[in-house]
Order: sequence, then structure tokens, then C-alpha cells
Amino acid sequence: MSKDIVHIFDTTLRDGEQVPGCKLDTEQKLVIAERLDELGVDIIEAGFPISSPGDFNSVDQISKIVKNATVCGLTRAVKKDIEVAAEALKNAKRPRIHTGIGTSDSHIKHKFNSNREAIIERAVEAVSYAKKFVEDVEFYAEDAGRTDNDFLARVCEAVIKAGATVLNIPDTTGYCLPEEYGAKMKYLKENVKGIHKARLSCHCHNDLGLATANSIAGVVNGARQIECTINGLGERAGNTSLEEVVMILRQHPDLGLDTNVNSRLLYDTSQMVSQKMGVMVQPNKAIVGANAFAHSSGIHQDGVIKNRETYEIIDPADVGVNESSIVLTARSGRAALAYRAKKVGYELTKVQLDVVYQEFLNYADRKKEVMDEDIHEIVEASKINIESLT
Amino acid sequence: MSKDIVHIFDTTLRDGEQVPGCKLDTEQKLVIAERLDELGVDIIEAGFPISSPGDFNSVDQISKIVKNATVCGLTRAVKKDIEVAAEALKNAKRPRIHTGIGTSDSHIKHKFNSNREAIIERAVEAVSYAKKFVEDVEFYAEDAGRTDNDFLARVCEAVIKAGATVLNIPDTTGYCLPEEYGAKMKYLKENVKGIHKARLSCHCHNDLGLATANSIAGVVNGARQIECTINGLGERAGNTSLEEVVMILRQHPDLGLDTNVNSRLLYDTSQMVSQKMGVMVQPNKAIVGANAFAHSSGIHQDGVIKNRETYEIIDPADVGVNESSIVLTARSGRAALAYRAKKVGYELTKVQLDVVYQEFLNYADRKKEVMDEDIHEIVEASKINIESLT
Repeated sequence: MSKDIVHIFDTTLRDGEQVPGCKLDTEQKLVIAERLDELGVDIIEAGFPISSPGDFNSVDQISKIVKNATVCGLTRAVKKDIEVAAEALKNAKRPRIHTGIGTSDSHIKHKFNSNREAIIERAVEAVSYAKKFVEDVEFYAEDAGRTDNDFLARVCEAVIKAGATVLNIPDTTGYCLPEEYGAKMKYLKENVKGIHKARLSCHCHNDLGLATANSIAGVVNGARQIECTINGLGERAGNTSLEEVVMILRQHPDLGLDTNVNSRLLYDTSQMVSQKMGVMVQPNKAIVGANAFAHSSGIHQDGVIKNRETYEIIDPADVGVNESSIVLTARSGRAALAYRAKKVGYELTKVQLDVVYQEFLNYADRKKEVMDEDIHEIVEASKINIESLT
Repeated sequence: MSKDIVHIFDTTLRDGEQVPGCKLDTEQKLVIAERLDELGVDIIEAGFPISSPGDFNSVDQISKIVKNATVCGLTRAVKKDIEVAAEALKNAKRPRIHTGIGTSDSHIKHKFNSNREAIIERAVEAVSYAKKFVEDVEFYAEDAGRTDNDFLARVCEAVIKAGATVLNIPDTTGYCLPEEYGAKMKYLKENVKGIHKARLSCHCHNDLGLATANSIAGVVNGARQIECTINGLGERAGNTSLEEVVMILRQHPDLGLDTNVNSRLLYDTSQMVSQKMGVMVQPNKAIVGANAFAHSSGIHQDGVIKNRETYEIIDPADVGVNESSIVLTARSGRAALAYRAKKVGYELTKVQLDVVYQEFLNYADRKKEVMDEDIHEIVEASKINIESLT
């Protein structure tokens, strides 16, 4: 089955960098941008040029070095923002301006003190103006997650007419449930005139832990771009995790969707971004956490030793991790102990294993994790018992 | 609208504790169990009694101190396991034995070298045997996520007849998509004879980042228990996050579901478990991460200052966090700077703010986060310009 490609729009350097205390300097951003290009993301959102001189400079520099990906700069629906973004992107091989405005009643009222008609007008003006500088213009309908579908469809129609190539439908507050977000995409796909001329994009936040599920619901219902960050970084609870959506599409070929990402670079990229931004990845982070492929319970270890697929669905090598590890703790069973004991040189009989295992349990109850050197000590201590059995 | 209660089955002390290197001693487990009881979880899975002497002791001690929650012990479908669990639970006010066996073809073949009929027989024997000791018996169909629905329904029917009160349908490998997991629950709800006598339970793993979404899909389709852990701890990429599912149900009253959890204790409980287990929570963790309520971008800060609900859906106080914080970085706008400057004593005019803001941007480009003391320095440095303007 030939698969539809979902574009990966990486916003680690823009939305991801909005993490308190994690500002990157231009040098660091350039290294990350080069790696993202190598990883195979389709679009790199490099910054918000008007927000500060440092951001302008980063977008300018990144535009010069990126070879394959589209380079994108964020703006508000403000002429000056758009001019500055166009200037920062002028050396990009494939430049994109990302402009937009809030469309939910809450944003229209509290943020802009405006009304629906005026918002559509501003949206169209912004897109038309951006088109004077670049061909590729993405429009974001901020807080689309809480925007009434009918009004959202009207906004989309208007900006497509003005030349928007991509329509970003952000769940800005991370409030949507997957079914609801998927239904929103489906509604737009079915009700926006001229929708075939633009690509729908998912931009989800993780406030309720649903960013990944919402993005997948979005592409299943017709979106063909996901905005995401390495390690799910970003303001508050962060953005959709790039590594999660890439691996879900790869592990579920039945969805008929894939990305251009080289998954074997995921782990290294995750480590690099974590180090440069100084934001650690929790051990139980899906795909890229330190324990993502580590088995410690006896039942699971036994299963993995018999057949890796019993408990593992992803081959660790596919995401750049060398091997799944079997960690010995008080939860480990005889099979895991025998497996590790053999690795360090002890071929135990069943009777010997029973004795060594009792010794191991007492030892493991006192110690968090049993290492190779501990195994020698345990076997040593058990020998007395083994001899006394004969 | 009266809401259906979804039971929260906390397995932080059993499945959660299967984190490599994070073994808790009995003392620590008792403190956590007391807190979970106070938090309002319905069931505390306290351990796997036969797995080690330490685990037996913990389940025994926890059974003695828990006042409200059901205390549960895990077993395999093995008589000795069940006897030992019953012994460990004998002082519990509300004891539950959790027994089960793998039901997917992969598990039946590779783990048990058995066949479907023999597996049903073992399942029924285990439940019947457990019923001799306790009234409340939960059955798990390990790897249910990859078990054929028709066979799974037969297993469920058989164990309900044998007296199972809860049916745990684990997505052991974390492979399911929400739609698929929800459809499985719906199928069981509609096709298992006697299903009204038992409660369906979601037990999801986070290997693809979908544990939370899968659990929600499960309860939307008829399950009434979620097995989860504080901070989503657990083997590999961990289990469903308790705090996420609790807050999703609370924030989406339209689902007509709720839990008995006192959400105001969530943040403190998260911190306590993180410290005791030595597993850190990443800053961008939903609900309980350090940044979950921190806004750093200018656009967002401006919105929050005008009206908190523009960007925040959860009142931080509802999960025990004192206030949402406004962090000043190079991404912050004038409104955020004015807000913080006012807090430290500067009432700036619009003209003054423009000047101070330029100084602030240069300063922020060099520094990751601008603190209160820095604001004094920035205003000091700007004064020259302010004076020169007059």
C-alpha cells in the first residue's frame, strides 16, 4: 500500500524554546537546525523574528545553512512582523511565513477586543501581505480548539482565497479530546470550499496529556502536517512529541500514513536537544526516555528472553538505541537471573539456580539494582548452600 | 447531571515500582500508601506478594494501615501465588486478589507454550481458587491489547462465571490506538454474557505516548476503572498518569464521568512519589510538571494577564499549585514586563515602557531568565535613555 506523507513541522526552536529558562543562543540553534534537517523534518520553524534581535539573527542564520527543509518564521497578523520575518528568511531556499490570529470568542473578546468580521479581515490582510514576500504562507487560527467549527471554516475559506498554503488548527490550551479534535479536522475537510488547495496542520498542546493522541486523530481525519517538538518540549506541558507521532505512524502501517523522518536518529537528537536546552527527559518518556526499552519485572523479563516481541513492539535499533536492557531487581525472576549469570560466566543447573535465586532475592531486597559485579558476590555466597545440597 | 464514578486503581506501588533502580523500602511504601488513601484512590495495588519477601511484607503492612481504599495484591494464575497473596492481604479491610494470565496468541505460544482452551481452564481455576480467600477478585487478560476480541470475550465470560468482579483489559505492550482500545471495550460490553456482574478496567502502557488517551477511550466506551500511577511511573515508558486521567474527566463534565480523587492533593503527591522513588518529573509533564502552569511567551503572557482563561484551562489551585507563574525571557512582551516591573515597584508610562523594553530585550538575549533583581538593573540602565527622551 502506498502511503500518504504527513509533513513534520518541527517547532523545537520556536514553540519548544518557549520553555522558561531554556533560551538557546544562535550557535546552539544552528547545530540543532542542522540536525533537524538531517533527521528529515519537512519544515523547521526557526523563530519569531520580530520578538527580539537574537531571534531575528537566529532565523537569518538558520535560513543560510538549512539544505533540505523549509525554514519558517512566526509572525502575528501585523505588517511589521511580516516584513521583519521576510527579511530574516530572505536567504532560505524554501522560506515560509507563518502568520495568524486568535479566532475563538475568548481570544477575540479578551485579547483583541474585536469581533468576528474584523478578525477575518485582519487574517486575510495578513496572508495577502505575506504572499507579497513568499509563496508558502501558513495561517494559524489561534485557539482553534475552542473556536466554533462553522466560524473556523469561514476563516479557513477566506485565507485560502488569499493564498494560504497551510492551515494550522491549534489546540492552544490543550483542552480537546482526540475525538473532538479529529471531528474538527473532518468538519474542515468536508466544509471548507477550496480545501484541496491547502494542507491542514495539527498543532496540539499537552496540558491534559493528549497532544500526541490529538495529532494522530487529526491526521487520521485528513490533516497532513503535524507541528511538534523534540521531547515534546514547549511552554507549560509542552507540544506534541515528534518522536511519538513519527513512531506511531511507523508502527501502525494500517493507517496508510508515514513521515520522511529517519527514525534511527531520534534517540541521539533527543539527547542533543535535552543537553543543549538543559531540560531533562524523564526516564519513563515514551520512545526516548532512559527506561523506554528497559525491562525489570520478572514476568516481563522472562517473556522478552523467550521472544522479544512478547513485550516489545518497537525494535530499539529503529530509534537509535543499541539494545533493550534487562535490569535485575527484586522483581526479576529466575530466567532473568540465569540469563545475566550466564553473561558473566555462570552456567547454572536448575537446582543451583533455585539456591542462587534465594540468595539473589535477599540481596536485591536490600539493593535497588543488581549489577554484574554483584552477581559474582551472590554466586559466591550461594556456593556454600550448593555444596551443602550435595 | 449525575456522574458515573470511574474507580481509580493506583498501581504506583506495584507496576509503578517496576522502574529499574527505584525500589522502595517498606517504610517508604507505607507513607505513599497512606497518602494514596488520603488522595481518594479506590484501590491501592500494594505489590506482588510472592515475588520477594520484601514485597510480601509491604503488602502485609499496607493492609494493616489503609483505612478506606481496597488493598490489592498481584498473582500469576498459580495456586501458590494466590495463597501467598491471600496471606499478605489477611488484615486488609477490603482485600482484592488480582490474578490472570496471557491471552494473546503471542503470549499463549511463546510464554506458556499452551493453547487457547488450556488458557481458559487455567484462568477459571485461578479465579475460583482466589474466591476461596476473598470476595473481590480481579482478573487480568495479559496482552489483551493484542488478543483477538472474540477469544477475549470468551475468556471474560468464563471468569465472570467463576466469580471475577473486575476484568482488567491490559494493553501490555502499549501498542493500541485510542479508537482500537475503545472499540475493544465496546465489544466486550456488548458481547460478554453477564458483563453487568463485573467492572471493566483499563490498564494501558505508554510506549507510544497514548496510555492516557487509551484509558479515556476505554471509559468512554464502558470501562469503569482505570489502572494508573502517580507521574505515569512504571516499566519502560510507564503506565497511565493518574493525574492526567483524573483532570481530563474533571475538565470534561460533558463525558458524565468523575472519580473520587481529591485533585488538590495531586501536586504534593507527585512531588512526594518523585522524591521517594528518585525518579524526576520532566518540567513539561502535564498537570504536575514544574512548568505545567508557567507562561513565558509574550503573546501568551499578555493573554493571561488580560484574562487567565485565554490560555489556561485548569485553575492551578485545583491541582494544588499556588499560582501560575509568569516567567520573563526574551520571548516576553511588554505586558509581561510591565506586570512584573509593577510587582517590584515600577509604574512605567507607555513611553518609559518602550525604552525599558528595548533594554530588557538586549538583557534577556544574554540571559535565560530575567529575575526580579534583574529588573532593577534593567530599569536603572534604561533611565539614561528615559532622561534623554525628555
